[in-house]
Amino acid sequence: MEQSRPVGPHTIASYDADLLALGAMINEMAALALGALNKAMSALLDGNDALAQEVIVADRAIDVLQHGVEDKAIGTIAKRQPVAVDLREIIATMRIANDLERIGDLAKNIAKRVLAIGRQPMVRAISASLSNLEARVRDQLSSVMEAYRERDDRKSLAVWSSDSAIDAMHTALFRELLTYMLEDPRHIGICAHLLFCAKNLERVGDHATNIAETVHYMITGDILASERPKADTSSALDPNFGT
Amino acid sequence: MEQSRPVGPHTIASYDADLLALGAMINEMAALALGALNKAMSALLDGNDALAQEVIVADRAIDVLQHGVEDKAIGTIAKRQPVAVDLREIIATMRIANDLERIGDLAKNIAKRVLAIGRQPMVRAISASLSNLEARVRDQLSSVMEAYRERDDRKSLAVWSSDSAIDAMHTALFRELLTYMLEDPRHIGICAHLLFCAKNLERVGDHATNIAETVHYMITGDILASERPKADTSSALDPNFGT
Repeated sequence: MEQSRPVGPHTIASYDADLLALGAMINEMAALALGALNKAMSALLDGNDALAQEVIVADRAIDVLQHGVEDKAIGTIAKRQPVAVDLREIIATMRIANDLERIGDLAKNIAKRVLAIGRQPMVRAISASLSNLEARVRDQLSSVMEAYRERDDRKSLAVWSSDSAIDAMHTALFRELLTYMLEDPRHIGICAHLLFCAKNLERVGDHATNIAETVHYMITGDILASERPKADTSSALDPNFGT
Repeated sequence: MEQSRPVGPHTIASYDADLLALGAMINEMAALALGALNKAMSALLDGNDALAQEVIVADRAIDVLQHGVEDKAIGTIAKRQPVAVDLREIIATMRIANDLERIGDLAKNIAKRVLAIGRQPMVRAISASLSNLEARVRDQLSSVMEAYRERDDRKSLAVWSSDSAIDAMHTALFRELLTYMLEDPRHIGICAHLLFCAKNLERVGDHATNIAETVHYMITGDILASERPKADTSSALDPNFGT
């Protein structure tokens, strides 16, 4: 068995309390990040500025939690001097907090674009594709957080290997948006913002994949091969496919 | 004085060797990231596909170094059980490696877009703005890495507080690109890619700012207020300003 912590029941009890507290903060961050994403996308699809404002203001709570996780993690390492599996768990906590904080930023960025788009009518034909991409991304994030809570490596690997579906959806949406820009120049402004909203969703998927890698590392101590299956070819699209 | 490491000259010597090795890896990562950014932007402005390919392939080395930093940092924490300032330095090293790895990814993403743009003529009027933004971003990154090497908090704070100039340049470039799209639909494809290239440069600036925050934390133990002066309003631009 790996030596994982200083011996002594009192030490173990307070150490476990530290780990539990860190886990609770991560779960709270994940709930806030998922909520922010959901609200930001509702605000985008419904043109709801008040909801967008709410997302922007609420992002601060996610940032505060991330600092809290870092402080507690560093404090725990300093106090308890954990090794092996426990050290991995604490390092993993910091990494996951970092990804969740970025997801909060991406949701906030979508919310800011809602305010920019303002009263312009949404390009309705795009709504369905955006909603589908969002639903898929939130599924991935929910699943990987379940994998974290349940220490379920099978689940984390499933998330890790299915990011390519998100990439493919993003590439299709990129093409769709360029088509609308080409068809009607009045769509250019709004579609430029939607290009970034779609990209933000795809990035949330990447962060879910990062979290899957971290959960796998936390459970097994192994680092997944850095090249996972990719299907996002939007950055390599012929820019004139539609002309 | 803070208790910073286990006592004993041999232990101290090997501990210092670990820190030096980590610092050397960070410096190597920074040199590779700066080089990648420079080459990716030259490839973009000159339409040089071979150079772009070089950047894409070379990104692997930055990823490998990041994993190396993480492994060594975690190994050092486990072996040496550092506290206070030394623990901060190791945590800082992991954070900076994370930012540099992301900068490498952003350079790679620009390189991929060079291949997508292919033989289409660059919108020449945009080149100057892109070059200016790149030069500014690379200055920030060079300065913050100097701050890291010299443990110069004054320098890190200077980087931290001047990110708003990059944000303002990015916002202006965003407007410029939309204007070209509106003027001539044949520019839409290439300009969509350039929107993302500009955004990638702005994100490199954000990572330089993150590194500045980390260097400040490493030196002082303090966390900078999370709300720094921002001037990137591109996500809040009226999408129809030009119509």
